[in-house]
Amino acid sequence: MSFQRLVRFVNAQGATAFGDLKSEPSGDLTGAEVEVLEGDIENGFRGTGRTDKITKLLSPLPKVPLVICIGLNYQKHATEANLRVPPYPVVFTKPADALTGPFDDVSIHPDAQGMLDYEGELTVVIGRDAKNVAEADALSYVLGYTVGNDVSARNFQLPDTSGGQFCYAKSFDGFAPVGPCIVSPSLVPDPQKLRLETRVNGGVRQTTGTDDMIFSVAKIIAHLSRGTTLRKGTIIQTGTPSGVGLFMEPKGFLQNGDVVEVSIEGIGQIRNKMVFEEC
Amino acid sequence: MSFQRLVRFVNAQGATAFGDLKSEPSGDLTGAEVEVLEGDIENGFRGTGRTDKITKLLSPLPKVPLVICIGLNYQKHATEANLRVPPYPVVFTKPADALTGPFDDVSIHPDAQGMLDYEGELTVVIGRDAKNVAEADALSYVLGYTVGNDVSARNFQLPDTSGGQFCYAKSFDGFAPVGPCIVSPSLVPDPQKLRLETRVNGGVRQTTGTDDMIFSVAKIIAHLSRGTTLRKGTIIQTGTPSGVGLFMEPKGFLQNGDVVEVSIEGIGQIRNKMVFEEC
Repeated sequence: MSFQRLVRFVNAQGATAFGDLKSEPSGDLTGAEVEVLEGDIENGFRGTGRTDKITKLLSPLPKVPLVICIGLNYQKHATEANLRVPPYPVVFTKPADALTGPFDDVSIHPDAQGMLDYEGELTVVIGRDAKNVAEADALSYVLGYTVGNDVSARNFQLPDTSGGQFCYAKSFDGFAPVGPCIVSPSLVPDPQKLRLETRVNGGVRQTTGTDDMIFSVAKIIAHLSRGTTLRKGTIIQTGTPSGVGLFMEPKGFLQNGDVVEVSIEGIGQIRNKMVFEEC
Repeated sequence: MSFQRLVRFVNAQGATAFGDLKSEPSGDLTGAEVEVLEGDIENGFRGTGRTDKITKLLSPLPKVPLVICIGLNYQKHATEANLRVPPYPVVFTKPADALTGPFDDVSIHPDAQGMLDYEGELTVVIGRDAKNVAEADALSYVLGYTVGNDVSARNFQLPDTSGGQFCYAKSFDGFAPVGPCIVSPSLVPDPQKLRLETRVNGGVRQTTGTDDMIFSVAKIIAHLSRGTTLRKGTIIQTGTPSGVGLFMEPKGFLQNGDVVEVSIEGIGQIRNKMVFEEC
């Protein structure tokens, strides 16, 4: 898997390709130059020596087996939610169709608009099938790191409507924007030493270091792979820090047209506008 | 999608094929005669006129996009669990690798053996992509009905270990045996009028009519497809009736070598032995 920062993009001719971005991304990368890559997640990526320019950036992978999400994984978020931290990571999922591009609009179903919320998250991409992986080996299964937003319709997440299960509120099409690129672990020496920030319409809502995580990336992979095959391409959203709209006073839920940016130091940023479908 | 009872099998020559079983199944179908089908879930199935015999029955689909499970969907099970019924179906998932054959052994990870449980369930297979489907149209998206067991490691499901989320306890490889066949809706005029029975080592544990369901199959599909694409091939386990091991006195958890059979009238039965991996 030979790349520094894996991107997927449309070029000026309308063709879609993978590329390797040689410098740290800024903005939406329109016009940025990349080395074109051959291959895919199944067979690995290889440089071609050819360069091309990005016309539109896409989600770095076209599809994923599953998006696995961790809840309640930052100490300060657990405190704001007034919830006891369990002895293992809290696990729920989003389906493959939740995946969307780093700068795409997210279309919000009329029934999911009332208590719409953001969750900025360090996102891990699995690079080879993993089962019964020891914590000490876990990071060797990582293809790379990216930025994610675990978009959540809280009206379907509260216990009275969900029966306590988180999946439904988080599984709408497009509720997992990720990108802008997948950064090689060689450029991220320690995933527990990154700064994450979430902004809504420019205003900072979440700001944290990943050293506030309760379960490290390595512990999460080891736990998820216990007796269970994590397929290559699986995306793991590692939990959100304090500062979500649900726990603001007054509540900070997202409105039609709001723009959510999530950025992680050394990885880049995603920026997605929430577009409410007409009722 | 032209079949009565879709099976997938290995024949005497070791080749794998889809087949159409012309009569109601009994036993593990070894030696049963089927019409060979061409095609797949993506492109539809067509009869070939040729017949073949089953040497080993497999799960009716080789892979699925996702297994979606409904919790707490039988009135009597909600009563035994002492849980309030929420206004919408309770939703969690199993990954694709949970799928296993109708007569396969289920290999149980050492950490999942302490409180192992069964959940017999009417299982629905989606036949074409569904999004924002009205309840009145919902059953037209059904490819067919099959039998499932939502195998559960309760030690990872209880709130103290799971933080209240069900996914992890249910997501181990092989924890979704289904089969023996997918029965065409033309043979199941009303999915809410079926008898389901679960036996452990021959002893009856669960016996119910699907008329005890709180949310019908049609209501479940409508709810799950709200703003969310249900891909063809998706399997929906519609919830388990009363009688699970967790709520027996004394507890009726599964032991090494226990055989769980789930049967549904007019569809058939599955039978899986639990084989504990060595610690």
